[in-house]
Amino acid sequence: MKKHKTRLIKIGNNIVIGGKEIQIMAGPCTVETYEYTKKSAHACRIAGAKILRGGAFKLRTMPGTFKGLGEKGLKILRKVANEEKMAVISEVIDAKDIDLVSKYADVLQVGERNMQNTLLLEALGKAKKPVLLKRGKSAQISELLYAAEYIARNGNQNIILCERGIRTFENDTRATLALASVPLLKEMCDYPVIVDPSHATGKPSLVPPMAKAAIAAGADGLLIEVHPEPKKALCDGFQALIPVEFLKLMKELKLIAKAVGKKI
Amino acid sequence: MKKHKTRLIKIGNNIVIGGKEIQIMAGPCTVETYEYTKKSAHACRIAGAKILRGGAFKLRTMPGTFKGLGEKGLKILRKVANEEKMAVISEVIDAKDIDLVSKYADVLQVGERNMQNTLLLEALGKAKKPVLLKRGKSAQISELLYAAEYIARNGNQNIILCERGIRTFENDTRATLALASVPLLKEMCDYPVIVDPSHATGKPSLVPPMAKAAIAAGADGLLIEVHPEPKKALCDGFQALIPVEFLKLMKELKLIAKAVGKKI
Amino acid sequence: MKKHKTRLIKIGNNIVIGGKEIQIMAGPCTVETYEYTKKSAHACRIAGAKILRGGAFKLRTMPGTFKGLGEKGLKILRKVANEEKMAVISEVIDAKDIDLVSKYADVLQVGERNMQNTLLLEALGKAKKPVLLKRGKSAQISELLYAAEYIARNGNQNIILCERGIRTFENDTRATLALASVPLLKEMCDYPVIVDPSHATGKPSLVPPMAKAAIAAGADGLLIEVHPEPKKALCDGFQALIPVEFLKLMKELKLIAKAVGKKI
Amino acid sequence: MKKHKTRLIKIGNNIVIGGKEIQIMAGPCTVETYEYTKKSAHACRIAGAKILRGGAFKLRTMPGTFKGLGEKGLKILRKVANEEKMAVISEVIDAKDIDLVSKYADVLQVGERNMQNTLLLEALGKAKKPVLLKRGKSAQISELLYAAEYIARNGNQNIILCERGIRTFENDTRATLALASVPLLKEMCDYPVIVDPSHATGKPSLVPPMAKAAIAAGADGLLIEVHPEPKKALCDGFQALIPVEFLKLMKELKLIAKAVGKKI
Repeated sequence: MKKHKTRLIKIGNNIVIGGKEIQIMAGPCTVETYEYTKKSAHACRIAGAKILRGGAFKLRTMPGTFKGLGEKGLKILRKVANEEKMAVISEVIDAKDIDLVSKYADVLQVGERNMQNTLLLEALGKAKKPVLLKRGKSAQISELLYAAEYIARNGNQNIILCERGIRTFENDTRATLALASVPLLKEMCDYPVIVDPSHATGKPSLVPPMAKAAIAAGADGLLIEVHPEPKKALCDGFQALIPVEFLKLMKELKLIAKAVGKKI
Repeated sequence: MKKHKTRLIKIGNNIVIGGKEIQIMAGPCTVETYEYTKKSAHACRIAGAKILRGGAFKLRTMPGTFKGLGEKGLKILRKVANEEKMAVISEVIDAKDIDLVSKYADVLQVGERNMQNTLLLEALGKAKKPVLLKRGKSAQISELLYAAEYIARNGNQNIILCERGIRTFENDTRATLALASVPLLKEMCDYPVIVDPSHATGKPSLVPPMAKAAIAAGADGLLIEVHPEPKKALCDGFQALIPVEFLKLMKELKLIAKAVGKKI
Repeated sequence: MKKHKTRLIKIGNNIVIGGKEIQIMAGPCTVETYEYTKKSAHACRIAGAKILRGGAFKLRTMPGTFKGLGEKGLKILRKVANEEKMAVISEVIDAKDIDLVSKYADVLQVGERNMQNTLLLEALGKAKKPVLLKRGKSAQISELLYAAEYIARNGNQNIILCERGIRTFENDTRATLALASVPLLKEMCDYPVIVDPSHATGKPSLVPPMAKAAIAAGADGLLIEVHPEPKKALCDGFQALIPVEFLKLMKELKLIAKAVGKKI
Repeated sequence: MKKHKTRLIKIGNNIVIGGKEIQIMAGPCTVETYEYTKKSAHACRIAGAKILRGGAFKLRTMPGTFKGLGEKGLKILRKVANEEKMAVISEVIDAKDIDLVSKYADVLQVGERNMQNTLLLEALGKAKKPVLLKRGKSAQISELLYAAEYIARNGNQNIILCERGIRTFENDTRATLALASVPLLKEMCDYPVIVDPSHATGKPSLVPPMAKAAIAAGADGLLIEVHPEPKKALCDGFQALIPVEFLKLMKELKLIAKAVGKKI
């Protein structure tokens, strides 16, 4: 089947996703303090990541767990990103927060639980920032594309799709990274496709091999959790890389990128 | 987690799997005629594959479909392999055929349907040839390792594991290639691990990206279907690469192998 | 394991769910016109259903499909229910609509796509009406219970859980009705548990046997789609029973209810 | 869809499955000693079961676990069954054992791991006894029917199908009992369909509700594990009912059977 030519999406002033350059979005799962965010961002930028990730609004499975700092978290994220000359991606969990998050972030992320929250998707269709849409953990490829269409039909075609693992009978990993979705999506649409090996595997030791596999399979970017002290993280620390692991991974990724005719 | 050092398995006289050199097992799904097998094998060898695959005994989902040529098929396979100076891998579906298949093949393959056929596994523990054990499509990683232990306990530690996709809700691909099993198995055992992107995806266009991803994820080899005229194949032709596609893929794989410090 | 004594939830003025009487919630998938709603409701009430179901706000997989009539639909539903002396259940898809839907409905339904929309769940914790919480199609039982806890912690313990099928590799049915969740939930919590055989199977011919099975397994109620002219329905008509089928089913259900010491 | 009229299968001298009378196959997972088998069988027969189940040949996931007593086990089973005037069902795991098992058993069982062992299925097509074919845990309904066709094409149409749970993401139960397969199979073929709630749930407390649900859904029989001292069982004791639980269940099942126009 013929691949579509991937649509180029501009992020911030000088970053493009979908072209020859693979974009790495890295940082803590959730923004907790300026210090941790700064340490993580600095390490990520030094290693070559250009986009800082970090959640300020979170949907959590268990009630009573940390839900993010809200606007305070967004301010920390923006301040650190400016200092490090990075762009920012952060999650939106409610249509009413789109304007607020858009003030601080360069990419608006839709989490997997919200992939079929069509009210949110329609509102994002009117947003001025690109949207990163994560595949729901029980979503067929066609359902991910319908979800993207909810955004696109409302005026915003700057959409990045993200494979983050599906729910299967496998219980050794947090989810099953269904990497064939990357080349399949490339045949079915022209949106850039990135991969989140951190949430997919839930294990730091599996993040590097799956990150490399994603680039080899044709992904346009990666979303990776990096935390300076994972054991102290308030959310999902168990799956974060520490800065030195991330630095090593980035070196390896550059070789893979080159092998598939791209660069990082 | 610390990876085990991979066990080196000798195949035929001069092939080793589990080391720096990635081994490609390629050829038709099923041996049909000398001509097709020869054309496929020649193309595979020219492209760099050292092991010729081809089924002579098949378990088929639908009754009345082609079940393989039996010993006649094995003879064709061996003759062609000798002409091309390749080793042979072929499937065993019954303990009583082990000696027969061992006469012609250098590696004995256990198909996914037989992963828990413990009678067959125990008998293979006494075979003199290495065994390639495919993961069942609903098997947990631990169950694959128990299956390997059935073979190992009976005396044969020359085992190669193979990820070939699991059954999930995804219906755009024949199975879901659960590639994280490759690095996970590397942490849990010392057997070489290979990947079968042909059966996992069921689509020729997805075989190359998934083959590359498998090598990037750390696989020690690949099992790929190549047929000179896929539309005329008696079994699974829909997922076979044609020789020119395979040649192109092998060139790309060499670059990926190099990027992860290996060679093909 | 010891079962919890099921909590009794009052619906409207004179209906109780969780006790000896099994409650049937029936009606069209979506409210379309007064005429269809009236015909469906009348047939359901005559057959013994006391609660009228019908969606006015819908999340749909495909953009451009019918999303419900909104408040106009709720008004039709209430009018028909009053005429037929039935209670009303209808879905809420956004926290901001809770007050509106509460004006017309006696039970607020959370669809499977919203099971982890914790913003909605928290807001429903402050609602004055009972909540019917559907299990997400990829939700573990523990995740369903965490979702219920989001509601309960905010003050509303009037929760009814609903098994509606999970997503598996099965493709002959719309979902896989995981009926063992009914007795399992009875061991793990004290909320009433009902079953939706219409969405689970997606086939009218499978609704009666699965409805009977649900009652035999201990369900406190059922949610069933009934439409006078399924082929003209704007949403999910393919899975609706026609009135005469529903009437026949209700007679059979009464026998099953009696066999397990309950009544309809 | 129109249901097929169920084919009547004769078991032993005076038992018929597929008609008005629901048949209960009960007993220990595996035959261990005469004493346990006798106690279990006696309790089962008193409660109303007419067919004694018990494995003499077992495929086990883990090497080194109990594999059954072989012919010695079959002799115990037959002796006990004769004393109690019951028929016998026992598993066959290899084509070469068919004659042996046929000497002692009235029904030959194919376990889920062997559903696609087509060599075994073809050989059973020539057997003189009815075959109970369990659905593989990752088998589509169509694949189960193809497997049955392997037997039928070879001359034996006395086939009973068995739903025993499929593998899904659910981890609170051993498998997910996909009960809609019962009415679905009734629409697609004329073989009797029974259900195994013991293996499906893996929990004694869930066996009774699922057994009742199976009958309500239209099953022609049940396969239930009963052991006088489950904690001492050498295989799967964790899921067996004790005699007093089984007796209580049988009373309840009689009421459900009556409610669907059948009897036990």
